[in-house]
Amino acid sequence: VAKILITSGPTREYLDPVRFLSNGSSGKMGAAMAAAAIAAGHEVVVISGPVAIAYPSAARVVWVTTTEQMRDAAVEHFPQCQGAIAVAAPCDFRPVQIQAQKIRKSGSRFAIEFDETPDVIAELGRMKQPDQWTVAFALETEDPVSRAKAKMRAKRADLIVLNPPAAIDGDTCSVEIIGADQSITPAHGPKSLVAQAIFQRIETELLGPRARSSR
Amino acid sequence: VAKILITSGPTREYLDPVRFLSNGSSGKMGAAMAAAAIAAGHEVVVISGPVAIAYPSAARVVWVTTTEQMRDAAVEHFPQCQGAIAVAAPCDFRPVQIQAQKIRKSGSRFAIEFDETPDVIAELGRMKQPDQWTVAFALETEDPVSRAKAKMRAKRADLIVLNPPAAIDGDTCSVEIIGADQSITPAHGPKSLVAQAIFQRIETELLGPRARSSR
Repeated sequence: VAKILITSGPTREYLDPVRFLSNGSSGKMGAAMAAAAIAAGHEVVVISGPVAIAYPSAARVVWVTTTEQMRDAAVEHFPQCQGAIAVAAPCDFRPVQIQAQKIRKSGSRFAIEFDETPDVIAELGRMKQPDQWTVAFALETEDPVSRAKAKMRAKRADLIVLNPPAAIDGDTCSVEIIGADQSITPAHGPKSLVAQAIFQRIETELLGPRARSSR
Repeated sequence: VAKILITSGPTREYLDPVRFLSNGSSGKMGAAMAAAAIAAGHEVVVISGPVAIAYPSAARVVWVTTTEQMRDAAVEHFPQCQGAIAVAAPCDFRPVQIQAQKIRKSGSRFAIEFDETPDVIAELGRMKQPDQWTVAFALETEDPVSRAKAKMRAKRADLIVLNPPAAIDGDTCSVEIIGADQSITPAHGPKSLVAQAIFQRIETELLGPRARSSR
């Protein structure tokens, strides 16, 4: 039995008390990964941004709103876990200033300045110990396979799952699982089955050998 | 029996294929208003932005994403309706440019220029005929009652419902219903009951007399 951290859902970066930057991530793939890990007998901590779906009742869920909160929660829980699967789609940008009151219509154009947010899975990659592993997800709109491979290196991930923008909020998806050896396994179908295929590769390549060598 | 248009949920204004500006509106209050109108025997068309909740099966639902799409759908359906209840929280701003590819991290700050979007309920207010009515919702973080009254005039609404930011995505809410005579009726509790209270006031002040005078 391993303890596995799963980040899931979008994050929100507020501009004012009402408006935020986000994306359409629904948490469905995170919930499916949690279900696959639990079905394989593992313990799961889900760090989730705001979503409407329910996670498996056997998972412990830590709710967050912003990317910084997701980073903080992930950094706090990762040392107690054997690995992390970063299914979440955290906002990469946040407004430099959050307005205390609703931004009012002025009748004219205006500009908002954005900063980058922390890179959650890259931070876990930097802090991971030799007996720990990380799995990243990449959603690319240009040159996807080579960008995903570059991301895997930059984030020091042991596996990366490449999914297309069409996967967002859908019930099915079509992904490519890329390993450290650069081999690519495609998986397609309902998210529950795709999650099982991804988790199968995690068990074979990461969980089995490392669990054996480190315990 | 009247045909009633209800706008509901948030809208999304995309910055690129993945990221968008939005707000936390869940569609729960729109669904509760639709249920109250249907329970009172009326026909309902819901124009909804992306939400995870289900609308009453007796309602016709038109799905939209952006504020402009919500405006277009509302303008198309309003002439066949006796009144409109604008529960939706459309984005008031949209990026001047939508990037064709995901905005990439550059390591530095950047600015995005925003424009105002169409004001859906104000457009319905401008096009309404003497036998039609509109109900606006206002969510204000400063000086709420006087701003709500100013909005009612600016949008030519016959009633305005003032709800606090805390109402967003909650199951209960606390609102103030402000009529053309400036009288304020508070309503508080589960959204289903608050929707019934609002709909009661619509029936008494707008639906009853106008339905009688115009039919």
